[in-house]
Parts: sequence; structure tokens; C-alpha cells
Amino acid sequence: MFPLRRLFSFLFLLLVYYGSRGQNKIVVFQSDFGLKDGAVSAMKGVAMDVSADLKLFDITHEIPAYDIWEAAYRLEQTVPYWPRGTVFVSVVDPGVGTSRKSVVLKTKTGQFIVTPDNGTLTLIALSQGIAEIRQIDETRNRRKNSQESYTFHGRDVYAYTGARLAAGLITFEQVGSKLPDQVVEIPYQPALKEGIKLKGTIAILDIQYGNVWTNIGKELFDQLKVSYGDILRVEIYHNQKKLYSADMPYCQTFGAVNMGQPLAYLNSLLQLSFALNQDNFSKKYSISSGSDWRVEVWKK
Amino acid sequence: MFPLRRLFSFLFLLLVYYGSRGQNKIVVFQSDFGLKDGAVSAMKGVAMDVSADLKLFDITHEIPAYDIWEAAYRLEQTVPYWPRGTVFVSVVDPGVGTSRKSVVLKTKTGQFIVTPDNGTLTLIALSQGIAEIRQIDETRNRRKNSQESYTFHGRDVYAYTGARLAAGLITFEQVGSKLPDQVVEIPYQPALKEGIKLKGTIAILDIQYGNVWTNIGKELFDQLKVSYGDILRVEIYHNQKKLYSADMPYCQTFGAVNMGQPLAYLNSLLQLSFALNQDNFSKKYSISSGSDWRVEVWKK
Amino acid sequence: MFPLRRLFSFLFLLLVYYGSRGQNKIVVFQSDFGLKDGAVSAMKGVAMDVSADLKLFDITHEIPAYDIWEAAYRLEQTVPYWPRGTVFVSVVDPGVGTSRKSVVLKTKTGQFIVTPDNGTLTLIALSQGIAEIRQIDETRNRRKNSQESYTFHGRDVYAYTGARLAAGLITFEQVGSKLPDQVVEIPYQPALKEGIKLKGTIAILDIQYGNVWTNIGKELFDQLKVSYGDILRVEIYHNQKKLYSADMPYCQTFGAVNMGQPLAYLNSLLQLSFALNQDNFSKKYSISSGSDWRVEVWKK
Repeated sequence: MFPLRRLFSFLFLLLVYYGSRGQNKIVVFQSDFGLKDGAVSAMKGVAMDVSADLKLFDITHEIPAYDIWEAAYRLEQTVPYWPRGTVFVSVVDPGVGTSRKSVVLKTKTGQFIVTPDNGTLTLIALSQGIAEIRQIDETRNRRKNSQESYTFHGRDVYAYTGARLAAGLITFEQVGSKLPDQVVEIPYQPALKEGIKLKGTIAILDIQYGNVWTNIGKELFDQLKVSYGDILRVEIYHNQKKLYSADMPYCQTFGAVNMGQPLAYLNSLLQLSFALNQDNFSKKYSISSGSDWRVEVWKK
Repeated sequence: MFPLRRLFSFLFLLLVYYGSRGQNKIVVFQSDFGLKDGAVSAMKGVAMDVSADLKLFDITHEIPAYDIWEAAYRLEQTVPYWPRGTVFVSVVDPGVGTSRKSVVLKTKTGQFIVTPDNGTLTLIALSQGIAEIRQIDETRNRRKNSQESYTFHGRDVYAYTGARLAAGLITFEQVGSKLPDQVVEIPYQPALKEGIKLKGTIAILDIQYGNVWTNIGKELFDQLKVSYGDILRVEIYHNQKKLYSADMPYCQTFGAVNMGQPLAYLNSLLQLSFALNQDNFSKKYSISSGSDWRVEVWKK
Repeated sequence: MFPLRRLFSFLFLLLVYYGSRGQNKIVVFQSDFGLKDGAVSAMKGVAMDVSADLKLFDITHEIPAYDIWEAAYRLEQTVPYWPRGTVFVSVVDPGVGTSRKSVVLKTKTGQFIVTPDNGTLTLIALSQGIAEIRQIDETRNRRKNSQESYTFHGRDVYAYTGARLAAGLITFEQVGSKLPDQVVEIPYQPALKEGIKLKGTIAILDIQYGNVWTNIGKELFDQLKVSYGDILRVEIYHNQKKLYSADMPYCQTFGAVNMGQPLAYLNSLLQLSFALNQDNFSKKYSISSGSDWRVEVWKK
């Protein structure tokens, strides 16, 4: 019976070996490449060439060109819904070829984000916490024979390194040397209460519907002690200029106001948001989003 | 030899166990979310968190906002091509948060459609048949700790339930209680023959090329006894107003008429359609689609 | 111990069996269908119905309608990054239903391209080499009961055949009979040196950023003996008409010139390209791409 026992031992060790790998073989891509050319496909091809066992997904590739704030926001919006061990590759990189660092952030929640450290990590580092950051050592972690191409780090460094990390071919430590627990940050108005007013940033537009999403979360909003049906004053500023000022009810559902009327609500991320029922708030009032768009809200 | 026999028994049971699951681990998503934000990614993250063995695909996420008719049409167009046991999650939900029911339809062809019952099932229930409909019991089938968010049922209820059903973590019966075999229907002109005329709806535009697709199928069309090259009279109405009226040949291929000329043909779903050879029919004549666009056709 | 040895033999044979399959179960789709309707989903459903073990990806489905040149270019841009054995299904097919041949090209690098032979293979046949071309025998390699539909070969022939080839259900030989090693070619200006000038085609726009990519590769460009910072004269012609003429430096990174200024660089495919730093070259100067857009470049 000896060989049989050995077979079981082997199977057991195999199980232990695979069970011990931190990674779950999932890679999720984000970029400002769009879907019209072959850039996203080249990144995925490189990943499949690293390991055909990987499972590849996307956040979006329609980040407006060079818009680091939106890249930061999309990460914060989606990372929490993916399982522990997922590797994200985010490539919005106006400084490609300059001295910005290429890093992998491990969050306190056990996920990995492969990206240039150019502000992309501003929000996710805060919300998920920094477990450790490592700088990608491009002497080891770069696609073979890709040194002559200077402009597609997304494919040759980020996709390649993310895929190898997700496949368990390198450990997090093998990414490169440890950096201080500090990311490059985009300055913006954090959500806070000042007297009776809440202040915050228009973090993003829910672009498909034109709804306006702030960075004011439920816990802070609860301090206004607002009930459904109560009226809020909402003021929106672009830099120092006031562009919108109106009263609207706080509602549980869009159907609580007439078609075309404004309402305030908590969106799917439990952040204070503004909408027109079955119409486009941001288009109608020319409101955009980003670190230079601020909002002030108080209870009437 | 006893333990070896036990090993074989174990492997056999494993095989039986997995073979017995009805589902094929495929989930196909559809929505009006677009691909620019993180909503689709959040749904897929939730599904991967349910089971990393699932295979995730899409019909489209470019359904025009709130366009239930088009959601219904896209399901009818694509569901038949996917294997038995596939789970579809369709989220076009203008009434999110109102009293529309959340359901899972099992078709007679053995596929599952997870959706708000708001008209989305109008066409697929007819073409594939209703085996059984169950209402999603949100007390059990809802992502943990998601009760405070009122606006993203697509992620917290539909994607979550679809994923658990596809993964075999719940049976169809565990979705919730059985409903009558009846779905909410959008009223429209069904395809029929009245004297020498065929009447129907402009079901959809083949948007990329501007071709006009009706709901008049091959079997009905065959009753006109038309051969390739025969001339048809085609009239198009928006509500009661006639917007287009012309003669065109019935053709097997687009190349059978000169560039820019109109033709009638059977599309890939074997439905009567109209096109301009290498030009855009719907743009040129301002034709759209949906339940208020009707067509009348007869042989000259 | 006999049965144990038999178990090992069985496992070994299993290994040999699966190891011997040439295909890697990866299928990569490309088309001009767009992502708004159900056409891409129907192709993928057919593939999953062939074998649920396949892994399905995309190059792009946003090829401009009927633009065979761009289909050819996207293949050349992406195919090399995918692993050996990958099957590509490219469906840009203005001649659907006419006499163009349906083929599978096996490249010298061991990949397969399933496509109408209408010029789509112009560039990839040259860059990757033709190992063998076979014509799809539609009497055997066509989705069952699809003969009555004349307009969706992408789904019924190309996706179906590509999936069966990738899944190992048919061999390359079973695709159909062997053709001469010759593909249908689109005429264009090949990259070459004439005196002090390089001549070539504007192969494609990097559409997201408006950069202009030529077909002049690094090896040819090196013959000009240009260093970073050297000035190039760049002239762009549409057919015989000169539309752009200017001097610009050859740079390693976009940041080497001021915002809005032009530069020449080698793109991620190591082809000579032109851009404005953080602006849109092609829009600003109304430059497009394709076989009728030529470029001449020399060192000042």
C-alpha cells in the first residue's frame, strides 16, 4: 500500500501548494485606450501568453484621455466588489517615458493595483488602505525584447507584471523593492461638515444618465439628519464660480419626483448624488466633475 | 486494494455530482449602463466573488437608456445561440426601487433570464416559451450588507442571484416563489397577413449599418410567394403617419442592387428587413424602431 | 499493485492526449459589428455552444463599417502578442453572399486566422508568413440548420469554424481543401527608402489620441541615422495632394516637446509615428489613414 499512500501525499501536497497561492488568477484592466484599436487586445494577449489559466476582465477603457482623476475614481468605485487577491492593471499614463514610478499597491483588503504612481491611487489608497507598495523592477519585470519600445508600458510592463503576479509566477515581493507607504495624490476638497453645510467634490458623473455624484458619503450625510421628502439646498461651484443653486427633495427613488424634476439621493456607493428624474442633470446645467468641481449642501 | 477502490468511488461520485448540476456556469449580461463607468465591472466583480469558476459574457451594455423594447429585442436576438443552461442577467430598469417584480424566467429551451419584469420579457417569453417564472426573494437572494443602497439592484440582486444560480449554489426553486406563467408585455403590432398585405413592427435597427429589421418572419413572408428579384411595395408608419413608401426588389445579397439602392432581404434571424446597398437606410429616411413604428408590405 | 500502475498509465495517457492538441482553446474576435446590438454575442454564444472550455476575447468590434484596410491593420497590430495556437475570427465582409472565399490562414508563427479572403490578410500574411491556407468547406463547417440565412456568415461559418478548430473538434486539415499560398491583397505604398527620402503609408490613426502611425519600421528608419533631437521634414499626401508639410524633432518621449508641439517617435510597434504633445494631430490637420494616405520623410 506504500505507493498508494504516496499518491495521496502527492495529491495532498498539490492541494496545499495551490491553496497557498495568494492570487486568484483574476486580472481586471482599466485604461484610456478606448476599444477602437488593438491596444487592449495586445495587453490581454500578453497576459494570456504569460498564463492561459488567467481570467481577464475590464473596468473600462473609456477613461477620458489622460484623466487621472477619473481613473482614480473608477478604481475606488469597483475594486471593493471583486474578490480578495484580484490584480488590477490601470494604465492612464500621460507621463509615460518620464520619471513617474511604476508600482504595485497591495491594499489592506488583499487586492493588488498595478499602475503608474501619478495620482491614480489617490482615492483607493485612502478607502482600502495601503498594506504595502513596491516599485516594479523593470530589469526583471518587463516583457522580453520589449526594451526598444518606449511608449507602451501598459503592455510591456503593467500587463506583463500584473499577469505574472496573478498567475503566481512571481510573488508580491518579487515585483521590486518596497517603497514608503505613500502615493502621489491629486489635491481635492475632501467631504466634510462646516457649520450647517456639507462640503465636497463632484467626484464623477454617472455619464450614461447625466447624474452628478459627490464624494459625500452616507455617514457624513446622516449628520444633517435628513428624512425622505426633506428639502436640501444644493450649490455647485467650478473653481470659485457658482454655476448652480437650487432646492430639491431627498428621495429614496427617482419616481418620487415628477419627470424632469431634480432630486438628491444616495447612489449605489452610498454617496450623495443629484439627478433629474428621466432627464440629464449634467447636460442641462453644464456640470462636469473632477477635483475642481465643488459642492455645498445644507438642509432648508 | 480497498483504499484504491475507495479512491475510484470518490472520483466517480465527484463526476456524478458535477455532471448532475443543470447549470453550465455561463452568465451573459445586458444593460443600459454603457461601458464608460464601473457599473458593469461591479456586477462582474460580484459574480466572480460568488464563484471564480463562472464564465462571464455580454450581450450589450449600449441599450439606449430606459429602452425596454430594445432590451426585449436583444434578448430575443441572442438567447437562442447560447447553450442550454445559460443564465442571462438583463438590467434595463427605469422603475428601480418601485413595485415592479424581480424575476427569473426559465424558458422551455432550458435557459434562465434574471430581470425586472417590466416588459423586458415580452418577446423572449413568446419565442422561447415559459417553462416557469419565479419571483426573486430578496430576503435571501441579495448581496450581504447591500440593503442600504436603493438604486443598484443590477449589482446587488440580479448579478448576485444570476451568479449563484449559474454556479449551482442555489437551485431555480430557491430563487423564490413560483409566479403565474405570465410576463408584463409591451403592446406592439404583431406580424400578420391581412388580405394581400403583411403588417408588422420595425423591431430594431441594425444600428451599425442603418438597416431596418421588422418582426415579419420567413414563414409569414413565404405566404406572399415572392422570388428573388420580385418587386415589393414597402410603407413605413410612425404611429399613424406614413413616413416612407417605395418599391424595391427582394434580394439574396446586398450586391444584387446598385450602390445606394434599396432592397428587401431576410436578415440573420430570418426576418424581413430593408437596406440600402452600402448606405444607411434609417439615417437617410429618418426611420427609427420600437413598438410605435409599423410597416406594411405587399407584392407588386 | 497492478491497478495502481494502470491508474498512473491512464493519467499519463490523459496528459499526453491533452498535451498533443495544437490548439490552446483561445478564440479572439474582430468585426465591424459594433457593440450596440447582439451580433457579437450571437457569435460568442455559438462558440460557447461548440465548447464551453473555450476562452473568448476580442481585438475590436469598432472597425469602421466595411473598412478592410483597418481590419488588416488591427490583425497585424495584435496577433503577435497572443500565444501560439490562438484562433482569430475576423469578420469585415462587405462582400458577404458574393463569391469571395472563406478561408483559414495558418501563419508561420502557428496562429490561425478565420476570415473572408478579401484583403483582410494583406498585412498579416506578409509580417507573419503563410504556412498554409485552406478554404472553409461549408458543406461540413457550417452551423446546423443555418443554410436558410444568407447574411450572417460571421456567426454561422466563421465563429463556428473558429470555435471548432480552437476546441480541437476539427484539425486544420478538416477545415477544407488547401489553397495556393496567396491571399487577396489591397494595393498600398510599401515602406521604402528612395535617395534621402523614406516613403510609406499612413497605416492607421491611434484614434484615441489622434496620433498618426506609418508603416515605416525601425529598421528602415534607422537608415536615416537620426538621433533624438534631430529635425525631420514630414510631408503627408492624400492621393497626389500634399496636405501637410512641417519640421519636427525625433523624440523618445512626448514630454520632450512643449504642449501642442509636433514630434516624431517610434510607436509601440516600432513604427515611425507623428503626434502633438497632449493634442490631436489628425484632427488638427484633417489627416486620415488607409492605402490612399502616403507620407515622405527626410532628415534636415
